[in-house]
Amino acid sequence: MIKYDMSSTIKRLAVLGSTGSIGQQTLQVVRALPHKFHIVGLAAGKNIDLLAKQINEFNPRFVYYQDKEAQARLASAEYELLSLEDIARHPQVDTVVIATSGKSGLVPTLAAVKAGKKICLANKESLIMAGEIISNEARLNTAQILPIDSEHSAIWQCLNGETQKAAQIILTASGGPFRHYSLAQLNEVTIKQALSHPSWLMGEKVTIDSATLMNKGLEVIEAYWLFKMPFENIKVLIHPQSIIHSMVEFIDGSTKAQLSHPDMRLPIQYALSYPKRLPNPELPRINWSDISSLTFELPDFDTFPCLKLAIEAGKKGGTYPAVLCAADEIAVELFLSEQIKFTDIASLIEQALEQHQAIAHPTLEEIMAADAWAREKVMQLVGDNP
Amino acid sequence: MIKYDMSSTIKRLAVLGSTGSIGQQTLQVVRALPHKFHIVGLAAGKNIDLLAKQINEFNPRFVYYQDKEAQARLASAEYELLSLEDIARHPQVDTVVIATSGKSGLVPTLAAVKAGKKICLANKESLIMAGEIISNEARLNTAQILPIDSEHSAIWQCLNGETQKAAQIILTASGGPFRHYSLAQLNEVTIKQALSHPSWLMGEKVTIDSATLMNKGLEVIEAYWLFKMPFENIKVLIHPQSIIHSMVEFIDGSTKAQLSHPDMRLPIQYALSYPKRLPNPELPRINWSDISSLTFELPDFDTFPCLKLAIEAGKKGGTYPAVLCAADEIAVELFLSEQIKFTDIASLIEQALEQHQAIAHPTLEEIMAADAWAREKVMQLVGDNP
Repeated sequence: MIKYDMSSTIKRLAVLGSTGSIGQQTLQVVRALPHKFHIVGLAAGKNIDLLAKQINEFNPRFVYYQDKEAQARLASAEYELLSLEDIARHPQVDTVVIATSGKSGLVPTLAAVKAGKKICLANKESLIMAGEIISNEARLNTAQILPIDSEHSAIWQCLNGETQKAAQIILTASGGPFRHYSLAQLNEVTIKQALSHPSWLMGEKVTIDSATLMNKGLEVIEAYWLFKMPFENIKVLIHPQSIIHSMVEFIDGSTKAQLSHPDMRLPIQYALSYPKRLPNPELPRINWSDISSLTFELPDFDTFPCLKLAIEAGKKGGTYPAVLCAADEIAVELFLSEQIKFTDIASLIEQALEQHQAIAHPTLEEIMAADAWAREKVMQLVGDNP
Repeated sequence: MIKYDMSSTIKRLAVLGSTGSIGQQTLQVVRALPHKFHIVGLAAGKNIDLLAKQINEFNPRFVYYQDKEAQARLASAEYELLSLEDIARHPQVDTVVIATSGKSGLVPTLAAVKAGKKICLANKESLIMAGEIISNEARLNTAQILPIDSEHSAIWQCLNGETQKAAQIILTASGGPFRHYSLAQLNEVTIKQALSHPSWLMGEKVTIDSATLMNKGLEVIEAYWLFKMPFENIKVLIHPQSIIHSMVEFIDGSTKAQLSHPDMRLPIQYALSYPKRLPNPELPRINWSDISSLTFELPDFDTFPCLKLAIEAGKKGGTYPAVLCAADEIAVELFLSEQIKFTDIASLIEQALEQHQAIAHPTLEEIMAADAWAREKVMQLVGDNP
């Protein structure tokens, strides 16, 4: 029943956001599989020390960094300094890994899509803010968007080989550190508690988003764009062990799930190696003698309003998702700098969404304007209610 | 990423064993999807009343029944009486559902394979007794063998779209009604207890085989032939809820599972409709608010020796698996007629295997001879130790 594909070529990668959590894990995968991938481009924000080490190890042709003061230190005849966009669309790059955080991923993602690249997308904001534009451009330019998020990778793996549209997507969520907390308890949580995720090691922003369930809401919007699945058919299911990374139910009632230990290197590698899988002894295997139980519960939309806010913003579309992302980014920053309480995150986002004058089918400029408006609005709301 | 196949044609089915549990459920699927399948042939053993009803309802062109005395009653100008083999290889039949029990499935399976049919196989014994012959003939005649067993259907669904050989198959098992029993407790179990399966409604023989775990051992051998997976890479995992029907681990460490309520109509329909899936409102959906936990444990090979005996017989190959099947069939009959104890089933099979003079790469005749030898041997062993 099965045909085997034995073809093999070295893929030329650009890793945008190479010093962040996903970027570093991408380079771990490349390090473990040196004959499969070649690093052509590296781009980072401000962690120049680590970027310098990465340049030394991987010897890329193209480099970008945000920190202008580092120019003297990193300038070299060995590589060319290019913008994020120019790296993303360069003819010598086959595959672009978008591992930058926040809205900084949007412009290079769009450049890569327009250049018809294979895009391994870890940056949620691009699709959430500009899903319609990116989807249209991807179709026009036959660009492939391959998810790196563990949930979307799971869905994508479950859809592999299926020839018909699925009936339902079931996005699993660990539930974060505050599962079963009451609203009163949530009101009192500290930054330290919110940063202690039970199953995944991630950056600070994503960890807080996991604690509010905003992360899962953003993933619902991402799933909508990646898999063209109506919001009504995307369900969220709490699964604290983070072994089942998501599921797909088909039209005959059969459900497929993808399972693994929570380790981002697996979905990163799958996106890089697709359509092949590659053996990598560094990736963990499930040992079934260690797993006695996988549990499930429905999410609590009342205690975790961010989940509902995100799904509603996704359904309304237009510039609402951009406002959602921007308001969340500022609110999380305010929480991390101890200026607001944990429960204020949701209420600030809700107020921003309520006060937003949305635009349907926005241009990139209109999306950016909505983003800027939301950032200012949240700061203003905090100023009003200190 | 996904292409949709909208093609549709009516498939012409022959259901061999139409009055048994799988046969009846196959007809339920056909009844629910009348524009997709047309019943061309029906064949049954001795349940003539039910067969007469099925003939009346589905109006097949070809009929077979084992009971010669029924001939006068069922003779009709409406259909042709043919042998099982002749129905299985008839040019007007596209797909043959082999739902007969025991070794009676072997000859029609081989006839269908040689005629290059699509074979939906529920009968385990065919592949277990004559896996080498059937596999070779299937390859030579480009016949497709599509599993109906829920476990093998799950594996097949998980392998769908994968382009490389899998690393490991994980066959799940409910554990049967005697999970966690000690050997001393097993020694005392009654027929009624053994027939009370916790999650699946099945025929008597399969239910007892589930209680001894022989059924799972037979499925390991079946998986070996269906998926060409070495025995070392086929694991058995106890999963009492019977929601995950089996799993496949890939070379990158990612695992896929197929889940559904335990209902044989789903794997039957999948085999019939493959490569498409069909919506069928009669098939149950998983309601995740009802499932709080899925549990797993390793099987107890010491208390349930049938599992080990089957895997060993499968590894040794030749005529050993035929002896295993035949000895098990007789031993289960003896248990059901209260002539032996539950724990005697395993010891009788073990003795038959030990005393067997095996033949490697046997012909069909040699397989049948081994089968006859094992049946006689078990009776003789019981005679020796009444």
